[in-house]
Amino acid sequence: MTKPLRIGLAGLGTVGGGVGKILEQQGDRLASLAGRPIVISAVSARDRSKDRGFDQSAAVWFDDPIAMAGQADIDVFVELMGGADGPAKVAVEAALAAGRHVVTANKALVAHHGANLAAIAEQSGAALNYEAAVAGGIPIIKAMREGLVANSIHSVAGILNGTCNYILTEMEATGADFSDVLGDAQKLGYAEADPSFDVGGIDAAHKLAILASIAFGTRVDFGSVYVEGIEAIGIDDIHFAAEFGYRVKLLGITTLNDKGLVEQRVHPALVPLTSPLAAVSGVTNAVSVEGSSVGNVVLEGPGAGEGPTASAVIADLVDIARGIVFPPFGLPHSALSAPRSADMADHSGSYYLHVKAADRAGSMAEITKALADAGVSIEQIVQHPDRGQGGEWLPVVLLTHETREATMQKALSLLEEHADVVSAPVVIRIEDR
Amino acid sequence: MTKPLRIGLAGLGTVGGGVGKILEQQGDRLASLAGRPIVISAVSARDRSKDRGFDQSAAVWFDDPIAMAGQADIDVFVELMGGADGPAKVAVEAALAAGRHVVTANKALVAHHGANLAAIAEQSGAALNYEAAVAGGIPIIKAMREGLVANSIHSVAGILNGTCNYILTEMEATGADFSDVLGDAQKLGYAEADPSFDVGGIDAAHKLAILASIAFGTRVDFGSVYVEGIEAIGIDDIHFAAEFGYRVKLLGITTLNDKGLVEQRVHPALVPLTSPLAAVSGVTNAVSVEGSSVGNVVLEGPGAGEGPTASAVIADLVDIARGIVFPPFGLPHSALSAPRSADMADHSGSYYLHVKAADRAGSMAEITKALADAGVSIEQIVQHPDRGQGGEWLPVVLLTHETREATMQKALSLLEEHADVVSAPVVIRIEDR
Repeated sequence: MTKPLRIGLAGLGTVGGGVGKILEQQGDRLASLAGRPIVISAVSARDRSKDRGFDQSAAVWFDDPIAMAGQADIDVFVELMGGADGPAKVAVEAALAAGRHVVTANKALVAHHGANLAAIAEQSGAALNYEAAVAGGIPIIKAMREGLVANSIHSVAGILNGTCNYILTEMEATGADFSDVLGDAQKLGYAEADPSFDVGGIDAAHKLAILASIAFGTRVDFGSVYVEGIEAIGIDDIHFAAEFGYRVKLLGITTLNDKGLVEQRVHPALVPLTSPLAAVSGVTNAVSVEGSSVGNVVLEGPGAGEGPTASAVIADLVDIARGIVFPPFGLPHSALSAPRSADMADHSGSYYLHVKAADRAGSMAEITKALADAGVSIEQIVQHPDRGQGGEWLPVVLLTHETREATMQKALSLLEEHADVVSAPVVIRIEDR
Repeated sequence: MTKPLRIGLAGLGTVGGGVGKILEQQGDRLASLAGRPIVISAVSARDRSKDRGFDQSAAVWFDDPIAMAGQADIDVFVELMGGADGPAKVAVEAALAAGRHVVTANKALVAHHGANLAAIAEQSGAALNYEAAVAGGIPIIKAMREGLVANSIHSVAGILNGTCNYILTEMEATGADFSDVLGDAQKLGYAEADPSFDVGGIDAAHKLAILASIAFGTRVDFGSVYVEGIEAIGIDDIHFAAEFGYRVKLLGITTLNDKGLVEQRVHPALVPLTSPLAAVSGVTNAVSVEGSSVGNVVLEGPGAGEGPTASAVIADLVDIARGIVFPPFGLPHSALSAPRSADMADHSGSYYLHVKAADRAGSMAEITKALADAGVSIEQIVQHPDRGQGGEWLPVVLLTHETREATMQKALSLLEEHADVVSAPVVIRIEDR
């Protein structure tokens, strides 16, 4: 057995504790699989006295994670502090610059600074592994960077945020509205006190930007991700969608458009009830990859939590222990192309539209005419008088034929000002995948 | 760019042609990802004159794949001939013994001789990669050997044969019976002229034995797999199962029983309609892995065909080009334990039982008494007079509480001899996963 892989663990919260526990409990098996033991040589956290559920007595304590990253006698810096900037970024940069490998679960860091970090890593020959940053315990980074390497990727679509998927699943199951289910999710610990990063789609967008970089060989480009959250989805939308044979999911989607530009978008979407993504319920995550040779492959599993996230961190560590060091995004940094981002206005697809129409004869004709004037062609349209307020308004729900996003947005502004439209319409893109 | 990885391709059928085409079309991208080009230096097949869809002019031709494996100027021997024994085995042994890496799609070879081949590979330092042998384009070997390495595996359950899954899906969709759907599947090319390897469960058993070895660190033990096919499943069983909230799937399942022994079994199973495996339709494969830290992860995708299988072969080649050589089953061969196989009689679970009972007063009481006498406890029981032949027999369908397999088999022999039972009962194990 060769010499141990020495790691420095920065951040001893839930995931850090999980990593420590797995290394303690599975150490012998992992050493046999990796060809060498993996030992925690150094640790850094806010509170030294707290019990983390594993024995840290052999590890050198650092008050400052940045000092640990740059100076400790370690081979790998494991960053589990979080935050796109601040100490996490400084420490990771210091570790990589010093030629120390980095394993991180920090999606915000990789989404915002991945390209720059990859350049530093490449220069020093260090690994930058971040399996835990995307879809928790699902080995999607490995699958895309290695397992599906034969494929030109056409698209990646995923349920990348467990909080949103839990809320949408519960809304459908219980008939409760968004805000009630969010409140319950907060009580159960499935949503943060400030849920905006999750329900607003930012967390999913971080993960999507990372997946897009691997899929299309471009430098990570979080700034170009189009983001919509699930706050506007009502319980009626979930029911109306089901009547059309669809389920509402928050998806992150990246694809090449017909001009060879990369679409990156996070938004609620209608997926067919028969699709694999429709069957993914609760806090589970799933990623569907469409490749030139393989067709469609879907990976599904727990997207967060101590065990799943620690599982991904350990896999990254075992790779390093086995001597495997890849360019962080598959291609060498110099071979990654500059972001070539599609304009959301050029997106083309079908749309679900839910309009509260004035309850008077002719209002539906007015609305369909407004849509036709804007260039939107309707595939199906249904009135739901039972879900409205008789004499005041009634819901009109329709699916469009394929439409450009710009056309749809123009139609929406017409509708919003229309005398027969009572409040802002709900629009959800349809994804037949 | 370092020197190319030279491969020798033995077998130029569908998959071999697919590998050649991908290397031709994606060669530059793959070279950038692998750090070196992958070139076909030698080929061997039955017919030299046939067009395989890619340029072989730079490759040395061998009439004899065994000579190619042992003598050609190659780094990797790619075995796509098939067959558990014969030339495929001899050639792979020759290549490994000579220190040449091997990539194979041959599930029968790995299931029957994997342990011995791993020993030879370990001695010479060669890789033995077989991602394409299990579940086609799904990177399940990589996921289990690397991505989920942190986990003690509790169980692996999968839809491992696309032919069977297609037949069961079509039976449910069309209401046709097994033999009719099989005939259609043969016409469509989804089933072989001699379908017994597929519908009899042998093909799935090959794949399961391989997965069990990686999951539990044991030497591959195909001989101990319990195998039942789908031939006895009737269209009524599919309907009755649905009424109980289940769908019939052919599953391969490997798990540790409470004595630490490895169960390996392939048989039709009732899975809850809400489970991820129930949603897998048509020729798609899926594998569900339950690990100590990650919980449940499911990988789903095309299990066969030119593109998916070639995709897996290429991924194995890129790993080798990148310098990655693992012990074939994760642990070093010397660390794999001897098979410690559970006796199927010790299996414990719930059962679905479909009995044609004589259509006379008291026959149901007789049958339930016979089951009670044998020690089988009934959870639900339903008569379906509409699906029987009035005056002669009627179907009685029941679900049992947890029962030992040996008890169930005893009960079955009692029933088969029972005067009130018209023909051999259909028994399907229930898997709540």
